[in-house]
Amino acid sequence: MGRIYNFSSGPAVLPLPVLEKARDQLVDFEGCGMSIMEMSHRGKIFDRIIKEAEANTRDILSISDDYSILFLPGGASQQFAMVPLNLLTPGSSADYVHTGSWAGKAIKEAQIVGKVNVIWDGKDGNYMAGPDIASLPFTKGAAYVHITSNETIGGMRFTEFPRTEAPLVADMSSDIMSRPLDVSQFGIIYAGMQKNLGPSGNALVILRKDLAERCPDTVNYFFRYKTHMPEPSLYNTPNTWAVYVYKLVTDWVKENGGVAAMEKRNIAKAQRVYDVLDASAFWKPCADKNSRSIMNITWRLETEDLEKKFIQEAAAAGLDGLKGHRSVGGLRASIYNAFPEDGITALVEFMREFEKKNG
Amino acid sequence: MGRIYNFSSGPAVLPLPVLEKARDQLVDFEGCGMSIMEMSHRGKIFDRIIKEAEANTRDILSISDDYSILFLPGGASQQFAMVPLNLLTPGSSADYVHTGSWAGKAIKEAQIVGKVNVIWDGKDGNYMAGPDIASLPFTKGAAYVHITSNETIGGMRFTEFPRTEAPLVADMSSDIMSRPLDVSQFGIIYAGMQKNLGPSGNALVILRKDLAERCPDTVNYFFRYKTHMPEPSLYNTPNTWAVYVYKLVTDWVKENGGVAAMEKRNIAKAQRVYDVLDASAFWKPCADKNSRSIMNITWRLETEDLEKKFIQEAAAAGLDGLKGHRSVGGLRASIYNAFPEDGITALVEFMREFEKKNG
Repeated sequence: MGRIYNFSSGPAVLPLPVLEKARDQLVDFEGCGMSIMEMSHRGKIFDRIIKEAEANTRDILSISDDYSILFLPGGASQQFAMVPLNLLTPGSSADYVHTGSWAGKAIKEAQIVGKVNVIWDGKDGNYMAGPDIASLPFTKGAAYVHITSNETIGGMRFTEFPRTEAPLVADMSSDIMSRPLDVSQFGIIYAGMQKNLGPSGNALVILRKDLAERCPDTVNYFFRYKTHMPEPSLYNTPNTWAVYVYKLVTDWVKENGGVAAMEKRNIAKAQRVYDVLDASAFWKPCADKNSRSIMNITWRLETEDLEKKFIQEAAAAGLDGLKGHRSVGGLRASIYNAFPEDGITALVEFMREFEKKNG
Repeated sequence: MGRIYNFSSGPAVLPLPVLEKARDQLVDFEGCGMSIMEMSHRGKIFDRIIKEAEANTRDILSISDDYSILFLPGGASQQFAMVPLNLLTPGSSADYVHTGSWAGKAIKEAQIVGKVNVIWDGKDGNYMAGPDIASLPFTKGAAYVHITSNETIGGMRFTEFPRTEAPLVADMSSDIMSRPLDVSQFGIIYAGMQKNLGPSGNALVILRKDLAERCPDTVNYFFRYKTHMPEPSLYNTPNTWAVYVYKLVTDWVKENGGVAAMEKRNIAKAQRVYDVLDASAFWKPCADKNSRSIMNITWRLETEDLEKKFIQEAAAAGLDGLKGHRSVGGLRASIYNAFPEDGITALVEFMREFEKKNG
């Protein structure tokens, strides 16, 4: 069969030109006689690749030299622990905004390390809406404020980010590079790569350099940001394949107009699906209108049986991965940067047909 | 140019059939319409892959159900921290055998966590020989004993492993699956994948299940082995690409006779190089004869200028990566499982010619 429409929440669809290039270069990289996976991370070729990966990141998100760009193992889940280990020093506390499943996991890890102030919890609204950022009750003197820019499972996002006195730390795993961003507003931005950036198993970490100094000596060297900064990401042998694919993906982002163009395209793509969801009571969109994600669109149908039918028939029509997360059920379309417009057309047409037959 | 002979210490040479298969399957895995890198780690296809990867591991090393097989992020460097975090509980101490650069790094991380007994240190011998395992002064009641089975930088190895009362923990990054092993002799075996197993950024961890229970509640969830055991390696999104390539590499190991055949071939390959090194005083092999690695062969020449000349002329002849580690200098040939016999022939011939011209 041909290429399917892949709505997977992550690992997720990658740009086809990236996959084709990775395939063509896999056995022999640019005629050097070996694969990217076989070469030293300290050799000339990989040195060029990792520097280009960093330069692309700085270019796409306009990041100043006050920030380090690191590629660290373990995705966002490892950062849930590394952030408090480095910043939540004894005697201090950190503010966390609880917007859903991923924020909850970040909170759980931080509570192992130190005092956590959950300054807002979306539980009463079933995590379908975000906070009013103007009225968030930040703690005076907090070590940092942690938010989750986009909740992959719930399908909500921060449309704007708060300006905070304490460093703002954001898990942007599921919407990094989907929209323009003022990085100077943040202390740390981290993102598991497997949605908008590349393969799974790694995180991109954008870190204001001065924050790395806070880390206590009781933390293992490997989990200190400052260990990884002098030769960025080369303290240990990094995931060279992930850095390489990330470099290709960020090349693709640049060639396609950068984050401004990504956002325009993402809003248009998401709007076409939300338009269907809003057109009739047959569809029951989950996220609050003011907090709707443009990456992960979640909705329910009247019954679970009908949802099951939707998933099965969609899969048969080449629309894969529309099942909601197992913790919440329902339906979800993850439509990251690399998800193509014609996949949206196919989904929207399928939905209209499905409604006609089952409405 | 064609495929070069790649003596890189890691990331290192992979079997050509593995690379070719990974290339052929990269864009569209077995006609499913997407790449391995794009699919859910909880989907049917990846579930099959990770289960086959685990089954291959059990099969190749004859591992019983008393052990978990985990694929964890960060390579061996992260395990240097995770081992003591999980096992070196308050009030206990751990024995470490200091055989070189990598053992030293493991010790450094353990000392952050608790009390370390360095029960043997090869410093006086410049880390070119291993201990007499029969006379190692193990500490009564130690939480565990840590060894490094093969020192990639020095080029020495344990030819045999001690039988210990405390659980034996071994970093086998650079010789895992190069020889048969009695896994039941060990509490934990861990190995960064980028030498004998696959791409970089991940570690294989073989863990006696009962040991995971020791971990104190003060350790972050993500760094507890037990967090990753119930659904093996799926607590977070694992490095799916690395698991996939690992599966292909272990298929290749099995197709080529398993670890018994690997060892036979590795000994023969190494012997051909050591024979040249031992044949004249022109060559100055580093490791003690009784501790010689069959994976990483290290030697010096009379002067550093001559070493530089050797590296340059070898590279021009298609023999790449023969420079010793930057911390020790000299020359090193890393000849892992996937390194081909004809590459040994090429090296040996080059060495004989080089000696003739410069001896």
